[in-house]
Amino acid sequence: MKELSIGIVGYKFMGRAHSNGWKKAPLFFDLPFKPVLKAVCGRNEAALNEFARKWGWQETETSWRKMVERPDIDVIDIAAPQHLHYDIAIAAAKNGKHVFCEKPLAMSSAQAEEMLEACEQNRVHHFLNHNYRRVPAISLAKKLIDTKKIGQIYHWRCCYQQDWVMDPNFPLTWQLQQEFAQSGPQWDLNSHCVDMALYLIGKITAVSALTGHFITERPLAEEATSHNLKVRAKSIESGKVTVEDAALMMVRFENGAMGSFEATRFAMGRKNRLSFEIYGSSGAITFDLERMNELRYYSAEDDQDTKGFKTILATAESHKYMDHWWPEGHIIGYEHTFVHAMADFLTSLKEDEMISPNFTDGIQGLKVLEAGIRSAQTGNVISII
Amino acid sequence: MKELSIGIVGYKFMGRAHSNGWKKAPLFFDLPFKPVLKAVCGRNEAALNEFARKWGWQETETSWRKMVERPDIDVIDIAAPQHLHYDIAIAAAKNGKHVFCEKPLAMSSAQAEEMLEACEQNRVHHFLNHNYRRVPAISLAKKLIDTKKIGQIYHWRCCYQQDWVMDPNFPLTWQLQQEFAQSGPQWDLNSHCVDMALYLIGKITAVSALTGHFITERPLAEEATSHNLKVRAKSIESGKVTVEDAALMMVRFENGAMGSFEATRFAMGRKNRLSFEIYGSSGAITFDLERMNELRYYSAEDDQDTKGFKTILATAESHKYMDHWWPEGHIIGYEHTFVHAMADFLTSLKEDEMISPNFTDGIQGLKVLEAGIRSAQTGNVISII
Amino acid sequence: MKELSIGIVGYKFMGRAHSNGWKKAPLFFDLPFKPVLKAVCGRNEAALNEFARKWGWQETETSWRKMVERPDIDVIDIAAPQHLHYDIAIAAAKNGKHVFCEKPLAMSSAQAEEMLEACEQNRVHHFLNHNYRRVPAISLAKKLIDTKKIGQIYHWRCCYQQDWVMDPNFPLTWQLQQEFAQSGPQWDLNSHCVDMALYLIGKITAVSALTGHFITERPLAEEATSHNLKVRAKSIESGKVTVEDAALMMVRFENGAMGSFEATRFAMGRKNRLSFEIYGSSGAITFDLERMNELRYYSAEDDQDTKGFKTILATAESHKYMDHWWPEGHIIGYEHTFVHAMADFLTSLKEDEMISPNFTDGIQGLKVLEAGIRSAQTGNVISII
Amino acid sequence: MKELSIGIVGYKFMGRAHSNGWKKAPLFFDLPFKPVLKAVCGRNEAALNEFARKWGWQETETSWRKMVERPDIDVIDIAAPQHLHYDIAIAAAKNGKHVFCEKPLAMSSAQAEEMLEACEQNRVHHFLNHNYRRVPAISLAKKLIDTKKIGQIYHWRCCYQQDWVMDPNFPLTWQLQQEFAQSGPQWDLNSHCVDMALYLIGKITAVSALTGHFITERPLAEEATSHNLKVRAKSIESGKVTVEDAALMMVRFENGAMGSFEATRFAMGRKNRLSFEIYGSSGAITFDLERMNELRYYSAEDDQDTKGFKTILATAESHKYMDHWWPEGHIIGYEHTFVHAMADFLTSLKEDEMISPNFTDGIQGLKVLEAGIRSAQTGNVISII
Repeated sequence: MKELSIGIVGYKFMGRAHSNGWKKAPLFFDLPFKPVLKAVCGRNEAALNEFARKWGWQETETSWRKMVERPDIDVIDIAAPQHLHYDIAIAAAKNGKHVFCEKPLAMSSAQAEEMLEACEQNRVHHFLNHNYRRVPAISLAKKLIDTKKIGQIYHWRCCYQQDWVMDPNFPLTWQLQQEFAQSGPQWDLNSHCVDMALYLIGKITAVSALTGHFITERPLAEEATSHNLKVRAKSIESGKVTVEDAALMMVRFENGAMGSFEATRFAMGRKNRLSFEIYGSSGAITFDLERMNELRYYSAEDDQDTKGFKTILATAESHKYMDHWWPEGHIIGYEHTFVHAMADFLTSLKEDEMISPNFTDGIQGLKVLEAGIRSAQTGNVISII
Repeated sequence: MKELSIGIVGYKFMGRAHSNGWKKAPLFFDLPFKPVLKAVCGRNEAALNEFARKWGWQETETSWRKMVERPDIDVIDIAAPQHLHYDIAIAAAKNGKHVFCEKPLAMSSAQAEEMLEACEQNRVHHFLNHNYRRVPAISLAKKLIDTKKIGQIYHWRCCYQQDWVMDPNFPLTWQLQQEFAQSGPQWDLNSHCVDMALYLIGKITAVSALTGHFITERPLAEEATSHNLKVRAKSIESGKVTVEDAALMMVRFENGAMGSFEATRFAMGRKNRLSFEIYGSSGAITFDLERMNELRYYSAEDDQDTKGFKTILATAESHKYMDHWWPEGHIIGYEHTFVHAMADFLTSLKEDEMISPNFTDGIQGLKVLEAGIRSAQTGNVISII
Repeated sequence: MKELSIGIVGYKFMGRAHSNGWKKAPLFFDLPFKPVLKAVCGRNEAALNEFARKWGWQETETSWRKMVERPDIDVIDIAAPQHLHYDIAIAAAKNGKHVFCEKPLAMSSAQAEEMLEACEQNRVHHFLNHNYRRVPAISLAKKLIDTKKIGQIYHWRCCYQQDWVMDPNFPLTWQLQQEFAQSGPQWDLNSHCVDMALYLIGKITAVSALTGHFITERPLAEEATSHNLKVRAKSIESGKVTVEDAALMMVRFENGAMGSFEATRFAMGRKNRLSFEIYGSSGAITFDLERMNELRYYSAEDDQDTKGFKTILATAESHKYMDHWWPEGHIIGYEHTFVHAMADFLTSLKEDEMISPNFTDGIQGLKVLEAGIRSAQTGNVISII
Repeated sequence: MKELSIGIVGYKFMGRAHSNGWKKAPLFFDLPFKPVLKAVCGRNEAALNEFARKWGWQETETSWRKMVERPDIDVIDIAAPQHLHYDIAIAAAKNGKHVFCEKPLAMSSAQAEEMLEACEQNRVHHFLNHNYRRVPAISLAKKLIDTKKIGQIYHWRCCYQQDWVMDPNFPLTWQLQQEFAQSGPQWDLNSHCVDMALYLIGKITAVSALTGHFITERPLAEEATSHNLKVRAKSIESGKVTVEDAALMMVRFENGAMGSFEATRFAMGRKNRLSFEIYGSSGAITFDLERMNELRYYSAEDDQDTKGFKTILATAESHKYMDHWWPEGHIIGYEHTFVHAMADFLTSLKEDEMISPNFTDGIQGLKVLEAGIRSAQTGNVISII
């Protein structure tokens, strides 16, 4: 089997999740390429070496610029914070590498458009890892919508709630600084939600938004680190939080549906709750990521007496991806969505087909997020062309 | 409209629930008779008078023997503890009164058989108030079974869990003394569960059981009172608990199904949880009394992709009884089951039709409960003829 | 006991719910007044007489103007559609009657202000029946907030979802016409939600909104009737729907919290789902009216290992109102909230204390609803002074 | 790091789950040994080679006898059906190999005792893979019990429900034949449940049981294969089902608790539902394997107003094993329990400590299962010494 060499930038939360994906995909899926964990890139050499040893990355690099130029690498996997995506993706594309990029795609839709252009000009594949599209229950939701089980959609209602920064002593990590993150939950969480809405409902044409800024100053962090809950404050010095703590949006979709989004890091008790509800003329769907193996579905066509929301345990052979795992009823977890992404991406390379989500989808999503930020600043509805 | 005069024995928990039922039934149902709250009978005159005044009972009696002989009473409603049912029911029947009897029917199936005989000889109606048969969600369960939606039934799994006597200082009320109660949760709770099983699944032919006796001595109560959670211990004197604290049963049904029952007053955190599961060749049903407006239903005939347990909110017009209440989605409560019982009972008198459950059903139920007690004593499976 | 005579306007859905409340309150609560069902007012004499007979209203009136002038009536209960509230309430107040008014209070906050003024000038009590404030689980939510268990509140997230008009052949009842209803779910449903938010969170200072108009023409109804799901279309003639089908709002509260509201009649599968989530610095609360006996509560102060959302079955003696009903675990239903309202109202008359919600609360609520409508029209955030 | 060579017998469902465990354990845990996938043993050479290639097993063997004698293997992993465990385990022990054995341990407790003896005489480690002990939520349950949060335990109520053989045309696989499986759900499913009860509650002293035999003849299978739902019937020839379809038990524990078990393959709609409830004097716990990241916990010590069952998402750093995976709220799946088992096993080898469950635990479990079978045959309670 042909090998395909991966070079990854980043070795924290996403670096681990991606590494696990590259390793597991060939064990559970029949793939056209064998992914080779060629090189991992990061700044802290000791930590990087330890990571490479543990995960089996053959080599390490401390300069991503050098890595993207290596002739022995086929795919650049960007698992670094978003402020780095633009430079890395464009350099990778120019060097003829396919780009597998973690979300959010970029700091702006303008950046994203250049990234797309670079990929297209260099005829490389671009993939944007909104991994929740590859939850089997979400695949089922998509199928129900595509096969008209929900009918004309009237409502999309979505939230993404976390609580990891609620302690005022939680330090000023990079996620809380505009310079590195561009925005708070709007970029981090609503990027997922908007991608899901674009996937399941369709194009968004107008946005109003409201942002919340609850804790505006925090102790400095020991280092600008990854999404690592163990990070602790360094000292009594503090700095300004330059992103929002919460972002609400109301939207209109091109197909006439209305939608709402609530992304927050201040929902006490919610750890990673991406939840949505869809209501249409023939049925309804609800989902909660904290119970990601389940989809709830209501059909208006059931018998009068027995209408109700059904809890579908989406683990049957007939549910997308699940025939690759365990017998029905044996649930999968968060990390499996990465394995699905890697498997689909590798398969798509063979067939030379661009799969979704990719940079084109990412641009659409960023335009919605940007419209939200602008609306929150102006108090007006913002249209998206 | 013809009036029908009710005389009730008992004015505690069940006295209130029945009074409320008699008053509400004609407000929400079109009935052939107007129930008249003629007389209420009890021993404590002051409390009795207060109760009569509040609930509109026209007269009071302190002797049930006298009350059952009154020519101006048509129906005797027995809302007193079970050790009194036998005498009252037989006297009422002999005096030509219809008998509306609270569960459990009697202290033994032998008593119950005499009660039935007295009613039949005197051609009076007899009704046994296992009120949960008249929960709309249960009516739906029955309908699903009768219309073959569940298919051949393999499993019945039921529990009835409470925790109101777990405090060792809870006093020795009448419910904890064999003399008054005959048995503990086996009579009090499993009587409901067995009635439900006979209704939904069918005849039980064999029983094995296990009983638990966790707290065997308790402070004496101020008075042998009704199911009143405010009862407090009187003194440091104590007495023996002479009934079981928990009763488990495994059974075989005539139709080949297997079943299990768990009734306990020692399930910390459960207040009034009657829950059951039914599994058959074509579907499944589950129910929980603490969410009594809901039925969960799984159909093996749903599409492969969308099989799952559906939560049916049984409040639609098409659900039995619900067209008499509020618009769909506006839930009803515990007390409504009594209203349904009164409405059905009054309607059945007009049509001179014996409805269920009645004393015949009660005898079957008591035979199962007795077999359980015998099995727990002997360690053997007991057959029921 | 002193009697208090009630005159009610309306005998449909709300007429029944109120009548049941007046009858049940004295059975379950110790009240300072005995409510006498003196007169019921409506236009269709035959239906009115049948209603009066069934529910025990002593007399009928076909003119509410005449009824409010009767010297033998102490309280006017307005259970008619909102377009009538203004005239009736003011006339009642001028005749020295206390006013018990169903929600939504009026067609506008300007109307409501005049209604309040009339009551104050004539020193009569005014009560606005947002009955959900009197769900025991909601009383518990309020108590948790008031005792600082939730801490500083960051988020209010609320929806009220129904699906009763989704069929395009559902006729043009009065609820779908601005002339009678002023607005659609904004007035009907969001009035409840906003009242709840004002009660639990506090004053709202800014609103953005979006409305949806999904079905704009419908067959004419046989008569402009009450919220009656049995209503069927009369003919092939049709008319314009002049209210919105769905209304979304994002708000800011005076205390710094952010909020969102979604009220819709187009949420397939939802029958009467008022659901909300509250997140604060110390805890969280969620509620769903379709499971109205339950409150979900998360405490940030629980042990690290055992943090989680707790499902509290709010039926214990210690839960407000519940000591008047049944033993713990025996649930209550929708109609009980009316009984609580009647009991509290009667008690407040004796103590001559104005309880909430009343017309003052109603004015606040209407201002928020009006701001929402204005925002939906203009696309701007609207401030509330 | 020192290497440790594994030889595995079996390459079907359990072969995959174990292989995945051996590969993932060192990626997520710091282990004292690096497990080397040395050899995999099976009968079908083509399938075996394909499996070895995919999973990276260095060599294949078609004779387990030969494999257990190889000097270059340290651990024999038995992932084959139970009728083979006895021979393989004893041979492995005699050759000085540590034994990692899939459940159920053996065909009888007598076999198991010999297996234990062989291990002890040869001073090798023995581990029995009841993997559900290593679900983080179960670790939390154990901790709550051990720290007296539940108090004196009164009730254990457990079921393990599946539905994979309900179709009468499902063929006669090895799991349905006594010769290979010894028993049906009693061995397959109740072995898990009994292990869980021994772990969480304690020793079982008496058992009554009931078995169900619903479909007694089935088409022959193409081959006696593993737990593979894709298996299809070969022909119209049929054979006798020689194991039970369902097994119910009631038990007494040494500490005074009562328990019940229901294991069945005929619970329509349940795919892999191991669910249990524990009630004690201070609290309660419930668990459902289909939502294995959650534990429900009730504390009798909570404030009166806010008592309720809490849903704990057992994914925090403080929950056992979870600090090795993803940030809180990112759930894990079925396969992770195997990784935990491998990690614990490898760690225990270094420390030369026998961890649980092992063959000693397995003997206790088999004695309970055997008592159940005997009770079902005789109709009597069976004591366990």
